[in-house]
Amino acid sequence: MTNSSIGVDLGGTNLRIAVVDPGGRLLEKVSLDTDVARGKDYAIGRMCEEVRRLQQKYQNAAALPAVGVGVPGIIDMRTGLLRGAENLPGWTDFHVGEEIEKGLGRPVFLENDANVAALGEKWLGASREVDDMAMFTLGTGVGGAIVLGGRIWHGMTGMAGEFGHMTVEPGGVLCTCGSQGCLEMYASATAIVRLAREAMAAGPAPGLARAAGSDQGLSAKAVCDLARNGDEDASAVVGRAGRYLGIGIANMVTTLNLPMYVIGGGVSRAWDLLAPPVFEQLQHYSLVYAATKPASPGIKSTGAGANIESRGPTKTIVVPAELGGDAGLYGAARLAMMSA
Amino acid sequence: MTNSSIGVDLGGTNLRIAVVDPGGRLLEKVSLDTDVARGKDYAIGRMCEEVRRLQQKYQNAAALPAVGVGVPGIIDMRTGLLRGAENLPGWTDFHVGEEIEKGLGRPVFLENDANVAALGEKWLGASREVDDMAMFTLGTGVGGAIVLGGRIWHGMTGMAGEFGHMTVEPGGVLCTCGSQGCLEMYASATAIVRLAREAMAAGPAPGLARAAGSDQGLSAKAVCDLARNGDEDASAVVGRAGRYLGIGIANMVTTLNLPMYVIGGGVSRAWDLLAPPVFEQLQHYSLVYAATKPASPGIKSTGAGANIESRGPTKTIVVPAELGGDAGLYGAARLAMMSA
Repeated sequence: MTNSSIGVDLGGTNLRIAVVDPGGRLLEKVSLDTDVARGKDYAIGRMCEEVRRLQQKYQNAAALPAVGVGVPGIIDMRTGLLRGAENLPGWTDFHVGEEIEKGLGRPVFLENDANVAALGEKWLGASREVDDMAMFTLGTGVGGAIVLGGRIWHGMTGMAGEFGHMTVEPGGVLCTCGSQGCLEMYASATAIVRLAREAMAAGPAPGLARAAGSDQGLSAKAVCDLARNGDEDASAVVGRAGRYLGIGIANMVTTLNLPMYVIGGGVSRAWDLLAPPVFEQLQHYSLVYAATKPASPGIKSTGAGANIESRGPTKTIVVPAELGGDAGLYGAARLAMMSA
Repeated sequence: MTNSSIGVDLGGTNLRIAVVDPGGRLLEKVSLDTDVARGKDYAIGRMCEEVRRLQQKYQNAAALPAVGVGVPGIIDMRTGLLRGAENLPGWTDFHVGEEIEKGLGRPVFLENDANVAALGEKWLGASREVDDMAMFTLGTGVGGAIVLGGRIWHGMTGMAGEFGHMTVEPGGVLCTCGSQGCLEMYASATAIVRLAREAMAAGPAPGLARAAGSDQGLSAKAVCDLARNGDEDASAVVGRAGRYLGIGIANMVTTLNLPMYVIGGGVSRAWDLLAPPVFEQLQHYSLVYAATKPASPGIKSTGAGANIESRGPTKTIVVPAELGGDAGLYGAARLAMMSA
């Protein structure tokens, strides 16, 4: 693992590529437009072009840098087939890895975007001091990843870690997956906007109504900003999202007993608002959390240092992610280093 | 692993000891009364006496047989301290492993009873052909175990696999653990009796009332027998238990994506009644199950053979346990073989 590697974060909007050295230093970063309207061949062509350029620039005597790619959606780890990639219309049931390999003329290492984000946080972020962790990624949807012994736990067909589709309210809101009461329906950015609209429909919610009528329209960020400024209706919405998130995390604490759960994705910027209901629910709904909680659960990220005793971690730590939007980029580079 | 080993199943009522050879053949079995009223020193003394006798009888040139012990309750894997052993009153916060080792003069291998049952089913029972599995044990309470790569996943402090305390109904029935809506409150033998009493209180339920007034009184078995004979009230109770069990399994399928989930414990004798609601809920509540379900989910145990393709398992199999009450005994012996 002495070579630098290349990480690719293939998102629905942005296609970002970074060269990262084995110490985690960013050597170069390129941001492109995924331009989904022009189709997948265009995006993959542009990606391969840039990757080849960077490979030549950063190759050393030993080898070309290895390439890791994070993609949104579920990857069948046996066949390389991409499934349920809602942010990449037209890419579903597509052999994305094979196509990239054709374009580059050599193997690439492919991983779900939530999984590379977890690898990034494990390598350089919130969970760099633990070997086992789970990450909840709260964005448009809710993604998840389980890291055991420093490696992604894929499960049988690569679908492990689908935390967004855990049932947190049996018989609850219908989910795009066909189920009801999935965590994604309560703790994603999309869900926060829906809950806010429900609050407006249920009674006067002047703050939310003002935000909805503004030029920017209603967004999860607008709801969280209102809640932070004391708006009661917005606070109730964010509190509800936090309580369901707490139940979802509680179920993982109770069944997996990991030392660390990291909360990432855009919605985790509201961790200051989410943390109080999350910790309240953890205490109430998980006997394992109650038995292993730290003296003072961190609202801010404290890293894992406090958790490590000589016999290894003994406390359940729940913290926000540290690498923000770059977690997946670093994680994809790390994936290539670990796999090459 | 050429030596036979000794497995001990230390239950709240029975203390059973077996000598098992590396091929899984039972060489000798001893059943004692745990006699909890006489205290733990008495039970441990009797156990050690029998184990020493069997060790001498079955020792070979290489060594004395190693000893594995399954105990009800949560064991802190770092300290050996027994916690929450409700069926062993007076044993809580007790260094059970240390005491047995004192009595035998050599190390023993200790494990939670749900974990040894899973090891038994993995070795000789329903999941002998897969490396990764989870087991739900439906008895007085609901226990659980996760096996990854053929070994128990203990988690950070040995509390992993507490499936009985997953939340399947937020805000639901208060659990002995302090939480609400735990799976144990809906799918254990105790829960089935409580649900039947609730049904009797809610309206006329003549079949259940007759069973409750009989000499044997109301038991989970009586409720299941009534349901099997077509009693509508009893069927509704068992159906409800099955639906909650389905939600609990669904959450594990969605987050762990394992090839096999085994349902054991006394209540699993009613698998013929539980299976239909379980599979209905799995299909509804887990996108991972929907994507990986076999052509015909087995009501009866089919073993895992059908699940194994050349690339490994690709289907999610949910089956009843095969070893019945002996799973823990074989699993404890297996634990000793694997660990010694």
